[in-house]
Amino acid sequence: MEPALRAGVRRAVGLSPVHPPRSHPGNPRASGASKRLERKPPPVVRPEGSELLFGVAPCALALARARRGLFRLFLQPSSGSRRAVTAELALQAAARGVPVQRVRRRELDALCRGHVHQGVCLEATPLRFKSLEEAEKPDVGGEERAKPRPVWLVLEHIQDPMNLGALLRSAYFLGVDRVVTSQRNSCPLTPTVSKASSGVMEVFDVYSTDDLRSFLKAKSAEGWELVGTVSKPEDVEDVPVISCLEFRWNKPVILVIGSEGDGLSLETQLLCHRMLTIPPGRALHPGIESLNVSVATGILLHSICSQKLRHGD
Amino acid sequence: MEPALRAGVRRAVGLSPVHPPRSHPGNPRASGASKRLERKPPPVVRPEGSELLFGVAPCALALARARRGLFRLFLQPSSGSRRAVTAELALQAAARGVPVQRVRRRELDALCRGHVHQGVCLEATPLRFKSLEEAEKPDVGGEERAKPRPVWLVLEHIQDPMNLGALLRSAYFLGVDRVVTSQRNSCPLTPTVSKASSGVMEVFDVYSTDDLRSFLKAKSAEGWELVGTVSKPEDVEDVPVISCLEFRWNKPVILVIGSEGDGLSLETQLLCHRMLTIPPGRALHPGIESLNVSVATGILLHSICSQKLRHGD
Repeated sequence: MEPALRAGVRRAVGLSPVHPPRSHPGNPRASGASKRLERKPPPVVRPEGSELLFGVAPCALALARARRGLFRLFLQPSSGSRRAVTAELALQAAARGVPVQRVRRRELDALCRGHVHQGVCLEATPLRFKSLEEAEKPDVGGEERAKPRPVWLVLEHIQDPMNLGALLRSAYFLGVDRVVTSQRNSCPLTPTVSKASSGVMEVFDVYSTDDLRSFLKAKSAEGWELVGTVSKPEDVEDVPVISCLEFRWNKPVILVIGSEGDGLSLETQLLCHRMLTIPPGRALHPGIESLNVSVATGILLHSICSQKLRHGD
Repeated sequence: MEPALRAGVRRAVGLSPVHPPRSHPGNPRASGASKRLERKPPPVVRPEGSELLFGVAPCALALARARRGLFRLFLQPSSGSRRAVTAELALQAAARGVPVQRVRRRELDALCRGHVHQGVCLEATPLRFKSLEEAEKPDVGGEERAKPRPVWLVLEHIQDPMNLGALLRSAYFLGVDRVVTSQRNSCPLTPTVSKASSGVMEVFDVYSTDDLRSFLKAKSAEGWELVGTVSKPEDVEDVPVISCLEFRWNKPVILVIGSEGDGLSLETQLLCHRMLTIPPGRALHPGIESLNVSVATGILLHSICSQKLRHGD
């Protein structure tokens, strides 16, 4: 469950609204609080089930797309080049009927609990993972089925929100058709993930499954190639290991990435047809024999996806 | 200047030593504090000019190499697979004559101010950037000059310690021969950088220069190829832009990477012979047209360095 949902309604700091917060349907406490305190700035009462997006890219993209319920946009007065950004966000909010509240920097700092907000926060309903059943509906999956060689990214137990965000950003940029995560032991789609993804999470669907192994077995039976990755090739048994430089992408492929600490589980490794490695460029000191998971995944995805660009299809 | 140096001696929390802290030469306050408080655990008095490394990899590698002055190793009691790691660290510390202090988890949390310490902290003198003059001494530079095609990574104004750490980790793994940063507006070599580099900072020299442009001009005059990178090729003027897939590495090369927010300064761009881009794999939504700087650098370095592996030299 999302931390924001567990916390429910909570108070943060007194703010100085330019536009007083409107009452939100189904949330009488928000409007009640602003009526009770007429002389000093009303405290920020957060609608139940809301969360606070922060940073320019996540807020701008959440405003541009209609994927979340939006409550309020918080803006810090700005100058210089940031002024134009703030003005554009205020216009977007007005067009969507989202109230704008001007706040001082330290108030925004307190609301965001130390996150780097770049002067912008957006109160919104959380984003959820999509289920694979939703994806299988004919009207959703049509585009992907038409592609001769799709590439999907499957994430097993990625727990660090910064890594999940960076992985989504890379997957989107490099042309991955779908991202699927394991439901168990994985990071949810939090505002920190959205910031780390530079807002990609606001435009790119992320799917999850509570039975990763059955899903992988089914794709394998459909003719997809499953490739995993390991930092220590000598630890892999019963699965061929090749360098990513040798891999040829000639059918639908799923790249399966394991957790930051432990890598792929043994059961998932055994479902893979091949393991890809990134050859190191020097003799490595014991204890530092791997890359950061999001850098390694970026390199592997680029190795795969750039074959499409090289061959022009 | 390092934050630890500015702060000087500071008190943190009361700890429960198994081995009482030894007095450190030139630091009478450390031994004085432990004598004054005999009944309750002595407060941690930090030697002036020390900093606190955290995490298994940075601490283990700092102990293994003789690059820092080492004061104390803090260990949290552990069980399971981590027990062996802790025992090995205690042995390494004993071999180096570094006192070991056993502490409770919450004491370590307080000492580390919320960083993920994995049960291990090491009090040590800071690491400094090396100067390029040091590198030019014949006994240091010999190995590099013998290489027909070295690759160096130059960082202009990288300010985020997580990015700097990830960049060092990638540069080391992929075989970069030297990393040089601009002295101005760049992140120093802090414990957070060491953790983000997974300890690479403890074994891999990082150089800096206070005159990046003169340095780049000199390398260009020596026959090195300078390649930069941009996320928006349309913004580049007067420098040829090519895809990293087309780049051929046939002489000594320097990859120049700019800051997270603004990219390369215009002056540095104009010193580059070519700009490399990573072709996107889809039509990108406005506002999310780039990769994370450490992922992008990983892909570019891999594109360059893997040519050595492909051609077998």
